[in-house]
Amino acid sequence: MGKDIKNQLGEVVEQPVKNAPNPAVILVNPQMGENIGAAARAMLNFGLTDLRLVAPRDGWPNPKAVSMAAGANELLDNAKVFETTADAVADLTYLMSATARRREMEVPVIGTGDAGPMFHAWQADGHKTGILFGPEKAGLTNDDVVLTDYILTYPINPAFQSLNLGQAVGVFSYIWKSGEGTAPPDFFQKDLSPPASREDLVRMFEHLEDELDKAGFFFPEAKTDLMRRNIRAPFTRARMTEQEVRTMRGMIKAIAKGRGKARG
Amino acid sequence: MGKDIKNQLGEVVEQPVKNAPNPAVILVNPQMGENIGAAARAMLNFGLTDLRLVAPRDGWPNPKAVSMAAGANELLDNAKVFETTADAVADLTYLMSATARRREMEVPVIGTGDAGPMFHAWQADGHKTGILFGPEKAGLTNDDVVLTDYILTYPINPAFQSLNLGQAVGVFSYIWKSGEGTAPPDFFQKDLSPPASREDLVRMFEHLEDELDKAGFFFPEAKTDLMRRNIRAPFTRARMTEQEVRTMRGMIKAIAKGRGKARG
Repeated sequence: MGKDIKNQLGEVVEQPVKNAPNPAVILVNPQMGENIGAAARAMLNFGLTDLRLVAPRDGWPNPKAVSMAAGANELLDNAKVFETTADAVADLTYLMSATARRREMEVPVIGTGDAGPMFHAWQADGHKTGILFGPEKAGLTNDDVVLTDYILTYPINPAFQSLNLGQAVGVFSYIWKSGEGTAPPDFFQKDLSPPASREDLVRMFEHLEDELDKAGFFFPEAKTDLMRRNIRAPFTRARMTEQEVRTMRGMIKAIAKGRGKARG
Repeated sequence: MGKDIKNQLGEVVEQPVKNAPNPAVILVNPQMGENIGAAARAMLNFGLTDLRLVAPRDGWPNPKAVSMAAGANELLDNAKVFETTADAVADLTYLMSATARRREMEVPVIGTGDAGPMFHAWQADGHKTGILFGPEKAGLTNDDVVLTDYILTYPINPAFQSLNLGQAVGVFSYIWKSGEGTAPPDFFQKDLSPPASREDLVRMFEHLEDELDKAGFFFPEAKTDLMRRNIRAPFTRARMTEQEVRTMRGMIKAIAKGRGKARG
């Protein structure tokens, strides 16, 4: 991508100094190799290179992906495969989920016009970012979505919402690229302490939920998943700093220990 | 598409009054049915429905297009097939061509950020519009491009420019949709006389070139195509009104007739 970035009129414009790599595209449980290949090709068309796969249905590598990638092979060769979404996003700081489905979740929804500038602002601030795409047909689970800071919705025709996975990644890649240079330096207030990585956050969730579980909090069991998501959503939304996560974990530990003592 | 148009945040906003249909997507000599189907699906995802095909390689209808369209069948059923690009765009008033290749042509190049608002402004003014996409690999010919008012270029990675045809149409469809509501009412100065249709313009070209040919203007023959494009470009760029085209044709006729008399 070098320094000689041209604008849409072909004029060479200065590239803003970036401290973080371009966003990771994370395909969760993708089914068809063709769609993975099409996604890889479209990513590279617009300058994205970090492809991650969570438990692809037909395993990996997949020859059908190669034939659709039309030359974006290096991107496929470098694709990282993970068992869970949480693993795939562990090193990232800001995350979006692409989904057309309306969710009864307290995760903020943003439009495509805002997404490009936000990603570039995050990158300019040195944060690693990513976006989740769900499997064909089923889409992302609520458990995946609650791990993300924003739900990104495309301005899709309500009468025909079924966007092909490769197309969804292609449109996002364009959106990201076209947001280049649009982020003002003070788009986000600088965090005083670095924001927590997604791994820190997930560990905090697990810690909290583990203690809640021991305390018999998750009842009835049928509602456990819903309760867990409702607990996670506000913490994700808060975009907690590393320090705040540490403090929170200290609080959980203290309360759990105190409870043990009082009882013991 | 109705009146209940929602913005990207899911809020219902008023739809601007439109006097012209949504842009036509014109695929010139498309090779693979799969790409035609993918294009149709992506068009409908973002609310476009007017698909036109110029001499598709494998004929029409094409079962491979149907299987890739994933339900956008009505759009394929209603696709219009033409023998030439000029025929396909005859009823349209404003045209763009999507091409990544740099052309030594006097056709203005615009970026994707401007295209959406321009199409919506044209539509709001009651003009029928369209965009040309060339065949896989080869892309549009210069003869096709010179029929269009603008070259639309995507902000593509210079190191990997090969955008899949279906993806190119998908990104355009998104660009068009996301431009909705962005066009100020006075985006373009109103023409005093209605702009000429593409058919009128092409007939004027043919009339002019016919007379030039009779006059022995096209010499050497090897340069005829280039000369013809150089003649057409400024007239297309001028966005001539119906009246201006009539006047121009009157002038050609008068000069030709005068010449004939002087000689005869």
